[in-house]
Amino acid sequence: MTRIALLGCGRIGQMHADIIAAHPRASLAGVFDTHGPAAQAAAARHGCAVYDSPEAAFASDADAVLIATPTSTHVEFIKAGVAAGKAVLCEKPIDLDLGRARDCGAALAGSDVPVMIGFCRRFDPGHRAARAALLDGRLGDLHQVVITSRDPGMAPDGYIRTSGGIFRDMTIHDLDLARYMLGEEVIAVSATGARLVNPALMEECGDYDTVTAVLSTASGKQAIITNSRQAVYGYDQRVELFGSGGMALSDNHREHNAVVYGQGFTNHAAPLQHFFIERYHAAFVAEIDNFVDAVEGKAAPEVTFDDGVKALALAEACFKSIAEARTIQLSEV
Amino acid sequence: MTRIALLGCGRIGQMHADIIAAHPRASLAGVFDTHGPAAQAAAARHGCAVYDSPEAAFASDADAVLIATPTSTHVEFIKAGVAAGKAVLCEKPIDLDLGRARDCGAALAGSDVPVMIGFCRRFDPGHRAARAALLDGRLGDLHQVVITSRDPGMAPDGYIRTSGGIFRDMTIHDLDLARYMLGEEVIAVSATGARLVNPALMEECGDYDTVTAVLSTASGKQAIITNSRQAVYGYDQRVELFGSGGMALSDNHREHNAVVYGQGFTNHAAPLQHFFIERYHAAFVAEIDNFVDAVEGKAAPEVTFDDGVKALALAEACFKSIAEARTIQLSEV
Amino acid sequence: MTRIALLGCGRIGQMHADIIAAHPRASLAGVFDTHGPAAQAAAARHGCAVYDSPEAAFASDADAVLIATPTSTHVEFIKAGVAAGKAVLCEKPIDLDLGRARDCGAALAGSDVPVMIGFCRRFDPGHRAARAALLDGRLGDLHQVVITSRDPGMAPDGYIRTSGGIFRDMTIHDLDLARYMLGEEVIAVSATGARLVNPALMEECGDYDTVTAVLSTASGKQAIITNSRQAVYGYDQRVELFGSGGMALSDNHREHNAVVYGQGFTNHAAPLQHFFIERYHAAFVAEIDNFVDAVEGKAAPEVTFDDGVKALALAEACFKSIAEARTIQLSEV
Amino acid sequence: MTRIALLGCGRIGQMHADIIAAHPRASLAGVFDTHGPAAQAAAARHGCAVYDSPEAAFASDADAVLIATPTSTHVEFIKAGVAAGKAVLCEKPIDLDLGRARDCGAALAGSDVPVMIGFCRRFDPGHRAARAALLDGRLGDLHQVVITSRDPGMAPDGYIRTSGGIFRDMTIHDLDLARYMLGEEVIAVSATGARLVNPALMEECGDYDTVTAVLSTASGKQAIITNSRQAVYGYDQRVELFGSGGMALSDNHREHNAVVYGQGFTNHAAPLQHFFIERYHAAFVAEIDNFVDAVEGKAAPEVTFDDGVKALALAEACFKSIAEARTIQLSEV
Repeated sequence: MTRIALLGCGRIGQMHADIIAAHPRASLAGVFDTHGPAAQAAAARHGCAVYDSPEAAFASDADAVLIATPTSTHVEFIKAGVAAGKAVLCEKPIDLDLGRARDCGAALAGSDVPVMIGFCRRFDPGHRAARAALLDGRLGDLHQVVITSRDPGMAPDGYIRTSGGIFRDMTIHDLDLARYMLGEEVIAVSATGARLVNPALMEECGDYDTVTAVLSTASGKQAIITNSRQAVYGYDQRVELFGSGGMALSDNHREHNAVVYGQGFTNHAAPLQHFFIERYHAAFVAEIDNFVDAVEGKAAPEVTFDDGVKALALAEACFKSIAEARTIQLSEV
Repeated sequence: MTRIALLGCGRIGQMHADIIAAHPRASLAGVFDTHGPAAQAAAARHGCAVYDSPEAAFASDADAVLIATPTSTHVEFIKAGVAAGKAVLCEKPIDLDLGRARDCGAALAGSDVPVMIGFCRRFDPGHRAARAALLDGRLGDLHQVVITSRDPGMAPDGYIRTSGGIFRDMTIHDLDLARYMLGEEVIAVSATGARLVNPALMEECGDYDTVTAVLSTASGKQAIITNSRQAVYGYDQRVELFGSGGMALSDNHREHNAVVYGQGFTNHAAPLQHFFIERYHAAFVAEIDNFVDAVEGKAAPEVTFDDGVKALALAEACFKSIAEARTIQLSEV
Repeated sequence: MTRIALLGCGRIGQMHADIIAAHPRASLAGVFDTHGPAAQAAAARHGCAVYDSPEAAFASDADAVLIATPTSTHVEFIKAGVAAGKAVLCEKPIDLDLGRARDCGAALAGSDVPVMIGFCRRFDPGHRAARAALLDGRLGDLHQVVITSRDPGMAPDGYIRTSGGIFRDMTIHDLDLARYMLGEEVIAVSATGARLVNPALMEECGDYDTVTAVLSTASGKQAIITNSRQAVYGYDQRVELFGSGGMALSDNHREHNAVVYGQGFTNHAAPLQHFFIERYHAAFVAEIDNFVDAVEGKAAPEVTFDDGVKALALAEACFKSIAEARTIQLSEV
Repeated sequence: MTRIALLGCGRIGQMHADIIAAHPRASLAGVFDTHGPAAQAAAARHGCAVYDSPEAAFASDADAVLIATPTSTHVEFIKAGVAAGKAVLCEKPIDLDLGRARDCGAALAGSDVPVMIGFCRRFDPGHRAARAALLDGRLGDLHQVVITSRDPGMAPDGYIRTSGGIFRDMTIHDLDLARYMLGEEVIAVSATGARLVNPALMEECGDYDTVTAVLSTASGKQAIITNSRQAVYGYDQRVELFGSGGMALSDNHREHNAVVYGQGFTNHAAPLQHFFIERYHAAFVAEIDNFVDAVEGKAAPEVTFDDGVKALALAEACFKSIAEARTIQLSEV
């Protein structure tokens, strides 16, 4: 059994706790949260310890640590976890500051403790089936990756103000997914941003709520990402891979497929699955499974620390592209 | 907490055990199986007692009993459970013999212990969404119910030989679902059967593997059921409600919605969900939820013992209709 | 060029006229209708002759005659056409009286003039693609044919009163299609009928507006047909072939595939194609093409006079099955 | 009757001829083609005159002229048509040279002869249904337009060499459609191009075969266009409108909707409609209808000469954006 210490018992931490508890080869060693009752509730639900500090978690006999605390703590906790010899799975992003993330990477160099970043979408069965069609040759040579990613609604203002901006907070998932699908490093980025959902807040933060990013590789492959902070019809998550031999489209999900036909209308009875907890549940399960395999030495983490740094560099390039109204070479960031 | 004793740790019993363990207001009190290791494995997985006999389960302090043992034991265990004052959820069918099921019903009369039969399909979110469209008037008056239900593959010969025949074993789910959707009692049945999947075995058993049943109500509503013991493309589960105001179709499910487009083909990447464990997972969860509510006195069981008897009577009528090549009035069985 | 005389310039006659006019190897020789202005309008639109009687059409130099007049005239016109040596394409049904249809068949015996009955659905590209999957082995051995066929709305009362009843007028298309798909003669029929759309009119006519027919072949193959005279959501035309190797489903059509997603709804923007003129346009084009081929001696008609008689016999058996509440052997009608 | 002279009897000219011939208020007055046999075949098919020169067409008594000749002749023929007082429908693009197109526009200023450019996609029923959802408020405020447009295969090398490049030849349809959907002028363009289908030919022509264009309006609306010269799975034509109130998606078409389900696969039986002649047939019919209305003075042309110039300016901006690796303000071209 891989015993995992959980830092952070918010929405995503609780979800990870449930998944770990149900995993046949993993268990929850203990939990920590700065908000005591949240930690106690999680511990009660799963019958595990409550750590009174992050240090206690690192000093525990857990095999691994899952970091689901606020972004500003990630770098410190990753380093502490690795120093304590514990395998680390850290939620995205590594940090809002690219330099700090790179420094952390330098500090980790030489360690053989597994460190994995939580880009869950790589593990989505639909997205993976599309990629499988690429890898087994059905799509021929890849030409374009098209990612649609729209949140059902704007996060609270306070969250937005400290999120690091849409590219570092939200698009970063798609930037990583684009890299995963492209199979080749991005060398240039061109981005476009607008303030259409909450212009006042975006203006205040120097941020955008409606963006498009176009990434290019050395061989000319393109990845096109469109994002919005608000899609009133639901969480819109689609991935398309277009190649010389065909196209694969990983489409949205509903809870069921009942459709009602009436005079003048044909309506799906179920909406799109609400948000990431529902939509990417199978992906989070597979992510934990890969992490447990990594802890057990059976597999490498499918998302490395370096992947986390590279996604952050792409986010930085997107902001720079909008600011300078030009294509940014990755070598510039 | 509703503490449930589980009798029978086969495939479906194990599934129920997992669902009970994850339910916020229920827990597994203990398990029994004639095959000791199966009971021990389930008990180990969920940290509960092992009963060394069904009697021990009935004598335990559990609040309720879930009967997932072979059909021949159902009547006896239902009666024993009720006698012990334990709420009962029993897998279908009640018995292969209609008279015995009716006698059991007579014996239970007057008891206020909740008894529920496991017709899980009533709880499927898609099927319920179709019914909701009927109940809220979007479909107007109901005219036809069309149920397609095909298993992915033939059960083992030994199972088939003791199953009571396709109508009592397999169609019975659809017969109950038809009654649930019709909202009015069936008065006449016309069935057609063929031996196309495994003619030799069907001949031997006097059974059919490919059947159609047409049910009628007093007001003229029709339910049409088509079944096959083997659909090589997967577990095909569709329900259609047709009325004066529209139509609702609860369609099949896949694990994901990735589609691959190539030269001359467009293929879904995921097959239909494999079988009832996968396809009706949400339904089984909702069924247990309804049962826990019933044990707690918050709701009535949505499937009664009488529903179980009536489905069995319909199954009997189907066999009789084929044998006599005529429409059978329900009053005849 | 195959020169075709058209008898009957109603809705379906006009449609045939347009299709003939656009056919590269056919032209309209002339038209007849008891309502003179209808004939004149059709002639003006296509620049062809107006016959002042059916006899004039048979006496003309046309190569073929297309009979789209009321059913009661079909037998007489078929015989006259064949007597005049003109290939005949006659709309369904041959007659409302099975005996009269059979007598007509006897009268035609020995003639080598092509006679074709207008069961257009055999020519539908979707239905044919499903059948192609059967013929090329992808579906294995056929087990069940499921046909859903619902008209968008009830025909006028006057039409219903003289239609010969739903099985002879409407279901007859599906009865023929079932035979086409089964590839084996039907030996037994069981039907169920109800009066749900317009009970008073149905009562008056001794007819039904909501029916189900189950056909069986000697080898046990089943065809299940569900019909309604009124589907407020549109013309519902689906065919499903289920076999030992797979399943093919020919689904409905819309004018386009725009879908609107909003808060709480996902709606198709286009309804189902309205009625047979729209839905089966490609089928009617292919039917005329087969007829022109038959006139030119390049192909046999894909729907023979005998097919027309057999569909009528099945319709007769359906009425008899309801009346006697039993399965009818085809040998009885 | 609007009598139309057709210049150019190639593939698209022949298609227009058929549509005009079937239009209830239009007829083909005559045809011209530099290749005599092509003109004679079209004239024979539709029973109209053959002009021995374009001048003869302009001098004829036709009410209107449809220009489907090579691009290099468009400006000259548009001016000649207008000078002769004939309404003009000219295929896209107006010219490969933006200056020449603008000069032509200046020359036409003051004339009230209707001039329409053949951007057929504006007339597609699915695309229009998506736009209708926008116009009637169902989508709220528009945020993003996403257009996928991929040709089934590369045009012949000779065509590509003289096409003016992908943006002027192919993307121009999408640039116009983006303007139509945005409902607001584009002020900035950022494009990305690659040579992936036929790198040698693209290199030779200084052209691209795989491109992405991102257009922005003053209010921040975005239009994202992805194009490829070759999609082996068929002609991929999708339009998506995303707004504050919802999303509309106009999806691809197939000839029919038969699907085959087998062991391990679920395949659509019909491919995507092959190419523009098939896919946009209804759009071309509606386009001619609008043109006839314009000739009769009942409606304004829905695509003006100015729309043709603006699409060309956007194409120019796309090439410039790639060349300079920066966002181009429309005011720069």
